[in-house]
Amino acid sequence: MELWQLTAGEASARMSAGTLSSEAYIRACLARIAERDPTVQAWAHLDPDGALTQARACDQVPRRSPLHGIPVGFKDVIRTKDLPTTFNSPIYAGHQAHEDAHSVAVLRALGAVVLGKTQTLEFACGGQFPPTRNPWDLSRTPGGSSSGSGAAVADGMVPLALGTQTGGSTIRPAAFCGVYGMKPTWGRIPFDGIKSFAAHLDTVGLFARSVDDLRLLLQAYALQDVPAPSVPKWRELRLGICRTPYWGEAEPQAQAAFELALSQLREAGVRLVELPWAPEYTDINRWQDDIMQDGGRSAFWPEMLGQPEHLHDDFKAKLNNHLGLTPERLRASLDAVARCRMAFEQSMQDVHAVLSLSAPGVAPLGLQTQGMATFNRLWTAMQVPCISMPALWGEGGLPMGLQLIHRRYEDHRLLEVAACLAPLLDLRKNSWN
Amino acid sequence: MELWQLTAGEASARMSAGTLSSEAYIRACLARIAERDPTVQAWAHLDPDGALTQARACDQVPRRSPLHGIPVGFKDVIRTKDLPTTFNSPIYAGHQAHEDAHSVAVLRALGAVVLGKTQTLEFACGGQFPPTRNPWDLSRTPGGSSSGSGAAVADGMVPLALGTQTGGSTIRPAAFCGVYGMKPTWGRIPFDGIKSFAAHLDTVGLFARSVDDLRLLLQAYALQDVPAPSVPKWRELRLGICRTPYWGEAEPQAQAAFELALSQLREAGVRLVELPWAPEYTDINRWQDDIMQDGGRSAFWPEMLGQPEHLHDDFKAKLNNHLGLTPERLRASLDAVARCRMAFEQSMQDVHAVLSLSAPGVAPLGLQTQGMATFNRLWTAMQVPCISMPALWGEGGLPMGLQLIHRRYEDHRLLEVAACLAPLLDLRKNSWN
Repeated sequence: MELWQLTAGEASARMSAGTLSSEAYIRACLARIAERDPTVQAWAHLDPDGALTQARACDQVPRRSPLHGIPVGFKDVIRTKDLPTTFNSPIYAGHQAHEDAHSVAVLRALGAVVLGKTQTLEFACGGQFPPTRNPWDLSRTPGGSSSGSGAAVADGMVPLALGTQTGGSTIRPAAFCGVYGMKPTWGRIPFDGIKSFAAHLDTVGLFARSVDDLRLLLQAYALQDVPAPSVPKWRELRLGICRTPYWGEAEPQAQAAFELALSQLREAGVRLVELPWAPEYTDINRWQDDIMQDGGRSAFWPEMLGQPEHLHDDFKAKLNNHLGLTPERLRASLDAVARCRMAFEQSMQDVHAVLSLSAPGVAPLGLQTQGMATFNRLWTAMQVPCISMPALWGEGGLPMGLQLIHRRYEDHRLLEVAACLAPLLDLRKNSWN
Repeated sequence: MELWQLTAGEASARMSAGTLSSEAYIRACLARIAERDPTVQAWAHLDPDGALTQARACDQVPRRSPLHGIPVGFKDVIRTKDLPTTFNSPIYAGHQAHEDAHSVAVLRALGAVVLGKTQTLEFACGGQFPPTRNPWDLSRTPGGSSSGSGAAVADGMVPLALGTQTGGSTIRPAAFCGVYGMKPTWGRIPFDGIKSFAAHLDTVGLFARSVDDLRLLLQAYALQDVPAPSVPKWRELRLGICRTPYWGEAEPQAQAAFELALSQLREAGVRLVELPWAPEYTDINRWQDDIMQDGGRSAFWPEMLGQPEHLHDDFKAKLNNHLGLTPERLRASLDAVARCRMAFEQSMQDVHAVLSLSAPGVAPLGLQTQGMATFNRLWTAMQVPCISMPALWGEGGLPMGLQLIHRRYEDHRLLEVAACLAPLLDLRKNSWN
């Protein structure tokens, strides 16, 4: 096994045992990047010397946390004090922020190494696509907008990465890249220092190659539930199945893979119950779009005032309120989402988590697309925590994601359900196997 | 009339007419600050030379907007690229951000001059109080947490200032300082670049000495309603009166001043209807506190990890979940607020705005207090726009605020109602009269 193939938890255990240095681990990741990134193009900014300097400093002091000496990639909409933050926008070419975002500062304080910035759709919103390719099939998108974070973790370039989700920007690339992705409860990881798009929706996202590695990140951000979760063994698990109002938009291969996973769980003794979607909430993805487009009316205003000639028409359309959103319609959309959330969380009272698709199929062909967020928008609107597990497989062995959803503030509990399910599912392999 | 007494709109008109330069106006403000601030202590950081350099640059180019050449103060939790941002925290002593917050970048792009940073309660949350005094009575607090913004605008040091509100941090100091304050609909001015406290509540706040000046700020942030508001003349106005569940906590002088304002409006022909508060929403201020305290569990985590020895116990209490908040309780509080908001906005269908108190009385004595947010927490929780007008007067001629409230996204309409009411109310004077 190559060093770059280690998960963060595995590398951390070796570092604690004194059999691996941060420098050696990060050198292995950098070598993997040097080999692969000319093709995959997951990184927007890298500073190998800076990362190795951080690594050597880590190696010379007592370990501060399990993330001590572990490299992390950050989507290039998240500010870092020692690397450029350019949002994939010509307006911010070469821009240096000088300050860490909240989500970066926490990991750095715990000893993690800022390895580099990962590619993103422009402003995580529209405009210019990143050049990033899907490691499973270079002719396909890795999904977006956290394209580089998904691809880099999937390709063994870095064990952990951060992204964001406003529509489907974390769960979708995690699904298409065959890694674990998590969108925590909205607001639990402050968005400070990240370019916002739509405040009601913007959420920090997490990428890893195992449930244990996601747990390391949740612990770093102090997202333990109160009281600590008591998750039953899988024989006692009872899960809800939510096909959402959009099941007909899933590809047959996604529907079939979902049914296969359900049968794997059923055979293991997990109880599954269908959670019907109330007809009055069928339009939730449109409501999410109203809320998201409205965010764009103010998010890109400084750029419009400062450098309109470098602002893509996608953003100008939002600034011009292209949907013609009125106060009445925005209130109606926000209130409908709030009622839907109450009904959904109520419907979850008797289950330990809810299962759905992460994406309507495998990653689409081409790089001028990021795939659909059909199975993400609704959960983002509801601000509930979601995890994508690489447990569904499609044409050519391409990954799709099985999505687990919980009520707000049950992030830790959701993770423990994912841990409980992992041995029962077909978590086949990594992209390099 | 002294130049420093001009409102932003008055100064802007003179600048457009060529009878006033930005430099002359800002010199007048700086002279007023030099005279008064050793006593009032509204400013955390000032750079007179830098402000004059900006002013001279403004004077040499065509006017970009009505705010061109107009000085603005920014609460010291709002990042500015050319002045320190220290949050009134020892952890950030001398801290320089190098980047403007969204709310600063917009005004700067429109030609406004960043005059300085105004004093704040530590992190706009707790801990260390600012030294700022109330210009109306130096033995009293100006209210917080946007203490310096309220005091500086009230004392003629600057015509416009920005603050924030998570509990009552804009409307309260506006009321105690006898100026206009506005808390727009949550999220309409992005919070990017401002230290967050509780994401569900954090809102950029506006301070000015006239309704027209508030309008200049709303226009700068492109907060015009769609479609543009058609506000009736005052004879056609119909307003709701909301005494909230906390009327008994208002001082008798506040209740009496409120009744006096109502009688002034009634005599002018404004129709007033009592909007009863539904008994099931009596606890809204406690729900707001749950949501706010929960925000503190993550907001101060980087500081706790980095410099715990310099973090005040107020913040450590929040990080330690001193209320013992559970997922169930947080969901219940958030959902109760959402239901209350729907009921409130529904109850407003037949009125043009709602009237309430801005504060339970006049500014309390002492500087180790910021007064109560009793009449603010509920509206902050509901994310609705609020304006405080200096239209109620208490003991010793001290100001109290009349609060106007509207439905979400009706910011512009709310402002036009305030403009319509202004001639009917006792907007007595400024602190220096």
